[in-house]
Formats: sequence, C-alpha cells, structure tokens
Amino acid sequence: MKTKTYETVIVGGGVIGCSIAFQLAKRETSVLLLEKERIASQASSAAAGMLGAQAELMESRTLFELARTSRSLFPVVSAELKELSGIDIGLVRKGLLRIALTAEEADRLRKHISCQQSLGEQAEWLTARQALEMEPELSPNVLGAMYIPDDGQVVASDLTNAFARSAVALGAEIQEFADVEHLVVEKETVVGIKTKDGIIPCNQVVVAAGVGTESLLKPNGLHVPVYPVKGECYSVKTSKPLLEKTIYTDGCYLVPKRYGEIVVGATVKKHACDRKVTLGGISSLMQQAERLLPSIMQAEWNRAWSGMRPQTPHDLPYLGEHPRCKGLFIAAGHYRNGILLSPITGIIMADLVEGKTPRWDISAFAIPETVHSYTGV
Amino acid sequence: MKTKTYETVIVGGGVIGCSIAFQLAKRETSVLLLEKERIASQASSAAAGMLGAQAELMESRTLFELARTSRSLFPVVSAELKELSGIDIGLVRKGLLRIALTAEEADRLRKHISCQQSLGEQAEWLTARQALEMEPELSPNVLGAMYIPDDGQVVASDLTNAFARSAVALGAEIQEFADVEHLVVEKETVVGIKTKDGIIPCNQVVVAAGVGTESLLKPNGLHVPVYPVKGECYSVKTSKPLLEKTIYTDGCYLVPKRYGEIVVGATVKKHACDRKVTLGGISSLMQQAERLLPSIMQAEWNRAWSGMRPQTPHDLPYLGEHPRCKGLFIAAGHYRNGILLSPITGIIMADLVEGKTPRWDISAFAIPETVHSYTGV
Amino acid sequence: MKTKTYETVIVGGGVIGCSIAFQLAKRETSVLLLEKERIASQASSAAAGMLGAQAELMESRTLFELARTSRSLFPVVSAELKELSGIDIGLVRKGLLRIALTAEEADRLRKHISCQQSLGEQAEWLTARQALEMEPELSPNVLGAMYIPDDGQVVASDLTNAFARSAVALGAEIQEFADVEHLVVEKETVVGIKTKDGIIPCNQVVVAAGVGTESLLKPNGLHVPVYPVKGECYSVKTSKPLLEKTIYTDGCYLVPKRYGEIVVGATVKKHACDRKVTLGGISSLMQQAERLLPSIMQAEWNRAWSGMRPQTPHDLPYLGEHPRCKGLFIAAGHYRNGILLSPITGIIMADLVEGKTPRWDISAFAIPETVHSYTGV
Amino acid sequence: MKTKTYETVIVGGGVIGCSIAFQLAKRETSVLLLEKERIASQASSAAAGMLGAQAELMESRTLFELARTSRSLFPVVSAELKELSGIDIGLVRKGLLRIALTAEEADRLRKHISCQQSLGEQAEWLTARQALEMEPELSPNVLGAMYIPDDGQVVASDLTNAFARSAVALGAEIQEFADVEHLVVEKETVVGIKTKDGIIPCNQVVVAAGVGTESLLKPNGLHVPVYPVKGECYSVKTSKPLLEKTIYTDGCYLVPKRYGEIVVGATVKKHACDRKVTLGGISSLMQQAERLLPSIMQAEWNRAWSGMRPQTPHDLPYLGEHPRCKGLFIAAGHYRNGILLSPITGIIMADLVEGKTPRWDISAFAIPETVHSYTGV
Repeated sequence: MKTKTYETVIVGGGVIGCSIAFQLAKRETSVLLLEKERIASQASSAAAGMLGAQAELMESRTLFELARTSRSLFPVVSAELKELSGIDIGLVRKGLLRIALTAEEADRLRKHISCQQSLGEQAEWLTARQALEMEPELSPNVLGAMYIPDDGQVVASDLTNAFARSAVALGAEIQEFADVEHLVVEKETVVGIKTKDGIIPCNQVVVAAGVGTESLLKPNGLHVPVYPVKGECYSVKTSKPLLEKTIYTDGCYLVPKRYGEIVVGATVKKHACDRKVTLGGISSLMQQAERLLPSIMQAEWNRAWSGMRPQTPHDLPYLGEHPRCKGLFIAAGHYRNGILLSPITGIIMADLVEGKTPRWDISAFAIPETVHSYTGV
Repeated sequence: MKTKTYETVIVGGGVIGCSIAFQLAKRETSVLLLEKERIASQASSAAAGMLGAQAELMESRTLFELARTSRSLFPVVSAELKELSGIDIGLVRKGLLRIALTAEEADRLRKHISCQQSLGEQAEWLTARQALEMEPELSPNVLGAMYIPDDGQVVASDLTNAFARSAVALGAEIQEFADVEHLVVEKETVVGIKTKDGIIPCNQVVVAAGVGTESLLKPNGLHVPVYPVKGECYSVKTSKPLLEKTIYTDGCYLVPKRYGEIVVGATVKKHACDRKVTLGGISSLMQQAERLLPSIMQAEWNRAWSGMRPQTPHDLPYLGEHPRCKGLFIAAGHYRNGILLSPITGIIMADLVEGKTPRWDISAFAIPETVHSYTGV
Repeated sequence: MKTKTYETVIVGGGVIGCSIAFQLAKRETSVLLLEKERIASQASSAAAGMLGAQAELMESRTLFELARTSRSLFPVVSAELKELSGIDIGLVRKGLLRIALTAEEADRLRKHISCQQSLGEQAEWLTARQALEMEPELSPNVLGAMYIPDDGQVVASDLTNAFARSAVALGAEIQEFADVEHLVVEKETVVGIKTKDGIIPCNQVVVAAGVGTESLLKPNGLHVPVYPVKGECYSVKTSKPLLEKTIYTDGCYLVPKRYGEIVVGATVKKHACDRKVTLGGISSLMQQAERLLPSIMQAEWNRAWSGMRPQTPHDLPYLGEHPRCKGLFIAAGHYRNGILLSPITGIIMADLVEGKTPRWDISAFAIPETVHSYTGV
Repeated sequence: MKTKTYETVIVGGGVIGCSIAFQLAKRETSVLLLEKERIASQASSAAAGMLGAQAELMESRTLFELARTSRSLFPVVSAELKELSGIDIGLVRKGLLRIALTAEEADRLRKHISCQQSLGEQAEWLTARQALEMEPELSPNVLGAMYIPDDGQVVASDLTNAFARSAVALGAEIQEFADVEHLVVEKETVVGIKTKDGIIPCNQVVVAAGVGTESLLKPNGLHVPVYPVKGECYSVKTSKPLLEKTIYTDGCYLVPKRYGEIVVGATVKKHACDRKVTLGGISSLMQQAERLLPSIMQAEWNRAWSGMRPQTPHDLPYLGEHPRCKGLFIAAGHYRNGILLSPITGIIMADLVEGKTPRWDISAFAIPETVHSYTGV
C-alpha cells in the first residue's frame, strides 16, 4: 500500500463497516476500509439475519425508532446492492410468529401487541388454532402467538458482501488482512492511521470493529468498552419446507432460509471470547426447537457455528464522534441488531463524516465522556 | 415410500430432471423425481453456467435453434423460480468475448460472425484495442475478439436447486438416495419402476440420468449409450472485479461470478470415469488463463473440481420416447449444454409426456432404433 | 486399464476388501481391487473403531470365537501396516466399561461376566465407586460396570487405508472409481469381471462390497441379500481428556480418540438407504451421552456423520465360496463388526482363494443355497 | 480463569511454545500456555515438516550445530509423545535428495558435500543415473544430486499437537482463544501477564508468538522485531507412491507424506501479511515440480495453503532472556526451521527458565539491546 491519502478510513469489515463504506462511496468521497481478517468473517456471517424490529427491541424507544426506519430501507437497499454487486441479499418478508408456550408469555405478548399497535405497527394476536393454520408444523402445545406480518430477514453474509462489493464498484478500496496498530492523532485530531505497512493519512477514521473496538483504541489511551456475547447456532436442511415464517420464542428462534435450510439460534454467553460451539449449547437448542416444531427432528443436520455479538455496558450501540478526539467516529456495539441496523447506521455515519446533522436523533448513542488513560508499563 | 401411484416418475436430479419436474408440476400432473445421490450432485453443480448459445454450437443447426430459444427463456424462468423458491439463479447478461490469439483464429471468428449475423443473431468483431477497452485486464497479445452481447450465465447449482424447490412448491415429490433397480415393463409399455423399496406404479418414466443413463437401462435390455467426458475446473477470488464479460477461447474460458469469483475451465477427457482433478489438468488451465488475462496470477486461489459431461455417440442429446418401450422418455446426453438447454428440455419433455407434439422440431434427437439385448450370464 | 490378467479380483475397497488384498499380496499372488468410489468411503470410515469382542457378541458363539481371535491379531497387524505404509492405525488397548444404569442391566452384566470368565476371557464387575475411580467424569448415577481390560480400538479409516497402501506396497493394484457391471461366468465358473472399460480376466473374484453386494450380484442372477442399517454418530473435542476407556451402554457408546476427540454413537435404523444425519438422531445421542458423562456437555462440537452397516437376514456375515458359482467368494455382511473382524477375514478369504482350508471353522457363515433368479423384463 | 499463580506462562501455541510447555511440564513446574487462536493454527500447521538440517543451514555454523543436535532428538521425542498423547508424529527417515538441474548447481552441491563430510555428516554425490535408480520418477534432465541419508521429516501439525497434549498429560494447562494485552512488569521484572480476563501472576513469561511476537511486546515498550515471510504450498495425492525421499532444489521441494500425499512448497514472500494463496504462486510451483518429477502431473490435486514464517532482521532466531526485562524469555523467529529446532528449543528454554545454563552455546541468538520506546499518541 502506498502512502495515498483518503478522506475517510473505516476500520472493520463487518456489516456496519461495509454499509458505511457503501454510503460514503455513493457520496463520492475517497474511502478505504481496513479489515483485520476477511470481509464478514466474524459476527456478520454468524447472524441469522432476522430483521426483528418489533420482536425484540422493547427496551429503548429510540433504538426501536431507528430499527423500524432501518427495516423500511431494506427493499431499496436490496435493489441497489443487486444492481451494483450482482448479489441477492435474500430479502424475504413473510412475517414472524412470536410464540407463547405459557399463559404468562401469552399475557406479556398481548400487552406487547397493544404497545406495538399504539406505535402504528402491525401486530396481532393469533390463537393456537390460527397459529397452527398459518404454520401447520407448529407444536399443538403452542398457546398462541404474536403475529408480525412486516418482519423479514436477509442472508447476513450476503448482505455484508454485497455492501462491500457495491462500495468497491463505486470506487471504495478495501484491504483485507490489514494490521492496524493505532490512530495517528495530533492536537486531539485524527490525521491518519498506522498499520504495519506505515501511516495512511486521512481526515476521518470510522471505527466499526465490533468486539475488537475496545482493544483497537487502547493504544491511543481511549477507553470504549465493547464486550463479546457468544451465541451458538445450528441449522438443518429439509427437502420440503417445514416453515414459512420465522418462529421466535424466549431463548430460541427458527428462521427458514433458502434451499430448505432452517437456522436455529441462539445461546447467550456473556464475555465468552472463544468461538467454540459446546455440545451443551446445541443440545439445549435442539430441545427447545423440538418443543416448538416437533417435525424438525426428522430434518437433516447441516452445521453448527458461533459468533460474538458486540455489546456495550449501557446496552446501546455507539454512534457518533469521540468526545476527546476530533475526526474519530465510532459505530460499534450493535449487539443482536447489527444486520437490521446496518442500512441506517451507514447513512448516519456518512452524514456525521460529512459534517452533516443526521436525519435521526442519535443523542442516546453518544460515546461516553469517561476516558481512562492506558496503563501499560 | 408407500406404493402410491404417480402419473410420471423422473429418474435423475440434475438440471434436466429438475427442469422437467418443474414443468410437469406446473401442469398439475403428479410427479415423483428419484435421485441416486443428492439433487445437483454431479455435472449440474460442476458446470460454469455459461449460456453460450452462439459461442459453441456451430455444428448442428437444429441444436443451435433450440439453444437460442432456450436462452431466451431464462429471464422468465429466473423470475418464476425466484418467486417460487426464493432462489436467485444469478442470471447475468453482460455478454461474451471469444478471443483470437492467432491470425487463423481471427479469420475463423470473422466467418463465424457473418454466419451468426445471417441467422439474425448479434455478434460483432472487436479489434484488439476495442477488446482491451471493453476488458482492460485482457492480455495485450489478444488479436481481436468476437463480441456476443446477448450471451449470459447463471449459477448452475442454484438453477438446479431452484428448479427442484419450485417443483416441490408446486406439488412434485423428490426422493434423494433412491436406488432404482430397473423399469417395470409389460407388453413393451412402462407400468412402473422398481427401487430397493419396491415397485412404484406410474404411467410414464422420464430418464434424465446423464452419464448414468446407459447403466440404468441395461437391466431392461435397452442400450442407450451415454459416455462421460470429464472436465476439470478451478476458480479464483478477486477483491476487485478483473472482468465483466465471459472470456472464451479454444480450450479455456473465464467466467466472472458473484463475490469476485472467476471460474476457469475446462479440460476435455473422454471416457474418464473418475472424479479426480489432476495437477496437469489445472496447471494447463493456469497457463492458458495467464495468456488471456495476465493479472489473474495475482488473484487468490479458491478451489478445483471436476464434472462428467454426458455425451452421446452422435454428439446430440436424446430427447424423445424410446422406440421399443412405450411410456419411456429419455432426456440425456446434453454434453456441455445442459444448463443452457434445461428450460427448453423441460418444456419439450413435459409436452411429450402429456402426449402433445412439442412446439420445436426434435426429430434430430430421436432415440436410435438399434437396441442390443443385455448379455449377462 | 489394459486386459491384463489377474489371479484374483476383489470388488470393494472397504476394510474387508482391503484386508483381503493385503493378505493376498503378502502371498504374492496377483491381485486387483476395484472400488466404486474411493477407498474407505463408506462404512469403513464411519465406524468408531471399537474392537468390542466381548461387549457385544453374545449371540453367536462361533462369531465370538472369530472375533476374539481377530482382536488378538491387531498388535502384529498394527506393526506390519506401520512398517509398510507409514500409517499408524491408532491401536489403543485401554479397556472398555460397559455401564449399568438400572438394576436390571447390572444383573444382566454380572451374568455376562460369568459367561466371559468361563470362556477364559477377562471381565470383572466394578461397583459404582470403582467405576468412578477409574473414570472420574462418569455420572454419579452409574450403578456399576462390566470392565473388560483387553478391549481396545483403532482409527477405522486409518486401518482401511493402511491395508490398502500396504497391499499396494506389496504389489497389489487398486483402481478407484471402477464401474463393475457384472461377473463373467462360464459353466458356473468365474472367468472374469466386466467393467465399463471391458472384461478383466481372472481366476477368482472376491466380493466384499458391503451393502452393495446384493445389487452387484443381481445381474448374474445371484441373490445374496445384504441390507443397510444406518448409524448416526457425532464427535466432540476436549482440551483435556475426559475419558481414558471406551464407555458402552445400550444404545450409546463414547470412544476417546486422539487429539481429545470423543466419538459418540450410534443410532440403529434398518433399511435406511440415505446418508442423512437427522436432528432427532443426534439429539437423542446427546441426551444419552449426558446421562453417562455429564461434563461432555462442556466439550466442543466437532462434527456429525452416518454410515451404512451391512447386515444379513440371518445376522451373520457371509464368508465362503458361492454354492452356485465356482471361483466366486463372498465376504460381506459384517454389520457392526467389520473393523474387528477385518484381520481374520483377510486371512480366511486368502486361504479360501488359495484353495486351502481355513484354520477356523467358518461353516456357520456359508452362503445360502437359495438362489432366486433375476426377474427383469 | 481464576487468579491462579503459575511458575511460568508461555505465550504462543505453535510448535515452539508447545515444545517448551512439554519440557517444563516434564520438569514438574506449573506452566500455563496461552494461545490467541487454536493450537497449531498458524505456521506450525503450514510447514511441510522437513528436518532438513543439512540441506539448508549453511550460513550459520552455530545454527547448524543446534539443528543437527535437534534432529538427533527426534527418535526419542517421537516415542515419548506417542506414549503420552497417543499421537504418531509421522517421523520418517528415508533421506533427501538435493537436486542439481544446472552445472553450476552441481558444482555448488559438490562443495557443500565436502563441507558436510568435514563436519562429520553423511552426504554423498549421486550421478544422474544413481539418482534415477534411487527415485525412478525423477526427470531425466536431473544432472545429479546431493544425497543426505539422515534427513527426515515429521507431520508438523501432529508434532505440535503431540507436544501440547503431552504437556497437558503431564500437568500443564493450555488456554486457547486467550487475549493477551500486555506483560505486567515491576522494576524491570515480569510479575504477571494481563489478559482480557484479568492479571495472571507468574514468575516467568516465555514469548513464543512467532510473527505475533513484535506486536505482543509493543505495549510494554519493548521492540523485538519479527516479520512474516509468506510461503505458499500445495499437495497432491497419488494411489501409488511416486517418491520415497524428499526432493529438494532451489525454490521448490517435494515431500512424500502418508496416504500417498506429496507436499510441494514453497514460495518466499517477505512482509506479506495476508494468508492468501495466489494463483501465480501455485502455478510457478507446479512448473517447478514438473521439471523435477514429470509424472506428478498425473497426480490428483489435493489442496493449497499458506503460512507465515517468522523471520528476524539478523536471520537468526531469538533464544534468551530480554536484556531489559528480567523473567521475560523469548523464543521466536525460527523462520523455516521451527519444526526441526523445536525439540532443542524446548530444552534450552526450559533450562533458561529454571535458571540453568543451557547445554549448548546460544550466545548468537541473544535478544538485541536496542530497544525503541513505543511511540503512540
């Protein structure tokens, strides 16, 4: 790599970094994305690809608003990416059933439906009979379900690769196996980035390094905590489709994919740094899947894998400029929502990098002031 | 499997069998497809997916006519299959350059262009300079090229799976790992098919078993020769696209696919039954690829594979009813053109099975009369 | 392949065929082994490799005698194969614990121990406490165990490949991807074998084709029934060894292998011809493994696979010359005991081929007289 | 991981780190090995496993002495590791032919033979005819060869895993996916190591992190330069062995392995940090292999891979205590000789850690005094 200058350097080739690269390339600024390994090699290829805006995000109103806006961007993004990269991201919008297996869950879901409706979202209660009519392979033990017709899904690794390839088609540069050492900062302002091959001058750096964000910024004395939450999954193959819609319940979801694949996820293991899939993890997911969809036990085993979701101490992603370092932007910590939030995160970060005020309120996602200095030798 | 009755049983889960199953399922007849291994496990997943109607088929006028009609069916087929199966078959129509590296090849191609034009097909001669403008990474040693703007490509295994999944969505049944022993024939008429699990009664059998066709029919004393022509291939990955169009020359082609993949093929080894990729085979393809596209040497190695193209003694596929066995239809021996000819073969065979006269003249593809009886013990 | 003549042609490149090839090559007769796919591609690579002579074979006294003799041959075979092929077959003789989880099983095992002792075999009863001292990770719910110190194991695919490579080192020829059509028989005597490439003259044919034996002989009008019994397995990886000995109970075994791998097997599904691993199959094996060895749930998932064990209607392998066809020898139907019985089967069949009376009584394994003629068209 | 105290913590789970762990565990000191990914995931599994003491190490007399001593340790190490871990390291000592293809090479090799003989090593010149008698598949264009009967080889990943498993069997602990942040140093003395999970107190740290050594020590202001030299390889499979001995020439070697595999290596690309195998790299190795062994072109393609050899600016490994940090030992930068030097490096480093003077002179491998301080923000 020569000492070419870039307007913006992005660190991290997951779905967030690639979406930002795509938006910046559309705006015709010069952009370089540096990825430690390969594009989509971590969480972005492990994700099941649900666009579950309504199924999960009940805690933060602001995040929910971003999520449903981001979900609405997918049809356009899908067409753009197909045109530019030739990659079909597998966007399917056949809805989601959030299943109640206990009376208590049924109560909780009914309240959630009212709440969703008051926000103008589609959501309706299905009796057990209605749920079974919609998805005949569901267990007869199902008590009912919240039906969300608008929810959908994509193929996470295809989305990430499509963002990356489309960014390149529009002029962005991507370097895999890039070894970033630290930012180059002068007068509390980013002026470049140091890799093993030398310094790359630039005006802005966007860090979208997922669980690697914290250690990436440590040599610069910046403390931006992001910790891993391991999730284990497996998938099966069926010759005839068993499901049309995504099935979701506490602790287990089943997502029907192309080629008769059903992805079953996911365990939640905080601070687990390894990528090992445990027998206990998938055994527990098998028992839960059987309770929801008994006939899945006749399906063919496909494979098991794991991913590290990037989580923050306050359970919200970071989206913004670092308060102590001008020109350093951070988009990390999307936890389970990276795929869903990737289109809007790309737009927000491109706005910020260009010095524009984003169209959406992102004050809740500001990088915290507290910065611990690095304590080496 | 119970002794259910089917209107039609298809033997062979490659692209031809699956296309026929799809067409029959669309016509609402009951159809069962039996596959010895898994869908698309042989030639149909090894193919590079070129729809090279004009690049190759100069020998047989009839075959050329079928091929160009079949090629014209792809846009509609692509949309149908995406709707029914969710699978994008990767149809790309960016054209093909048939390269001349010698003056003699240039002459031959110029004549071929005239011939194509007289048939109403688009084809034009590009000087070396024009070819390099179109594909700047081509070798400066290129003397010129025949440009065929209409040629395109698909992803062969996706096409086959999409036919299969769409057939199932329309009511067809598919059984993998099915062990067919022989046809059940009474009074020179097919009445069923015998598998390891028993006899399945049916009114028609369509054999679309590629290189397995000959041995499949042998226990019934029917001699339908199809021999394997092994082809070896490899592919590379590039981070930036090196090519937009397919590059074709005698003995070597380069097909740019999704995700920056370029497929390089293919050797031609008659009667080789093994599936082994030889070092010599891919080494020779590497040297040929370098002569066409020198910068491919910096691309990343991806993988190597091989496939068995099914060829017939008279170099034309069999499409028709067997002259000595009523109700037995054969669609086999498509050699290098299985992917391209699959849509039209599906329609022709469905017409035949339904007792209709196909819309296209297929007399050239009739099954030969000569039938040797089986000489076992 | 030229029309070279061989003394003996073996059909089948599993552990049985390769062991016979090895023994014949040692005796310096010219031998050709034909394998439909690749060496060790079916049951012989799916097997867990237990040499469980005493754990299982209680039904047939004759088979038990063969099994314990065969087991005693392994140390010498292991050294020979390592010398000739460089392959270590992973012979470990650390013993086996057959676990009782119920009082009834405990009774049954105690009787079995007496029976074993009366046959001069080592076997002893361990109380729960003794069993836990020997294998501390066992479940505290274990009631006791039969301990067989002499039982051992090998790596099944390494054994098969070592037989094959050693046979080649001694002059045997092996052809993979060979397509056998039928035997060539004159006056009820084998004179050759017909493949796609022509007739190979030979004086004897040994069929060791496992579940493929039946259909292989069908074109010659010979009916030698062998049916598949599918077994599903999985394995895990541990960083510290959890087990030293093989753990065995009804329906589930755990075999500790090199590199911290533990193989867990195996389901029993008669007449299942597919090679699909079902979710239900491995889920059930997970629950059984947890009952025996709770800490296995923390182990790392490795992979799942299946194999087809070849079984006969009378539950005993065929070892002998076919009563209706001189020069045709059959060694097939070893069910779960192919690995264990491979050394002795090699010697027995080599003796038979050479016209010698085997050292062991094999009358129980004779090929049945009943021969149905083939009923094709 | 709890805050347990260890005598020694080793950083790096390649062949060097695992050999040191094994030697320390044998001496019954408490040892913990931390590996960033998995054991043997980098250079130690990419290596071809040649023990080429005499073939290469002509530059440094000291290194040559270490190398031939280390080579002599392999038979004992092999037996120890097999006993403790059950893993056969594949030690084969069938010798090596260093081929001359030009008259100049022949001259150079003849001189090298004299030099070897004067050092008491076996080495002899073979004429082309003698070389072809020894290895009949060699090209007739070979002019002659240096024959080294003592040279041998192992399976590199098996050796590394066997060291690791044997260390664990003797009480060592190994943690994969461990994220080391920096050393904990007080008064220029190591007192512990900081990982993502907290501080692990210890008395010594041994850094054996290969190409990761430099960046690992950077946060502590220590500059120990090690740079990567990428090597690309591929392997083929043969049904009959083509070679018995290793074939070596400038720029290309062929190593016959178990199961008929031949490893062909390796390119030399300095400072290449990616792990990509280029088409150009393997194409060039194919042409070189064909010049040595023409019949390899009929062999079956197996796979291609790459590895990063760790090299130092002065072309010698570091073996010793860091001059500016008591208790910090470094064993890194073994370049192409890590497998060969692993047994002796384990012993030397264990001696140093125990405060003993190593049996061999290692002054040439001291860590340089020059220490640049870290220049972050």
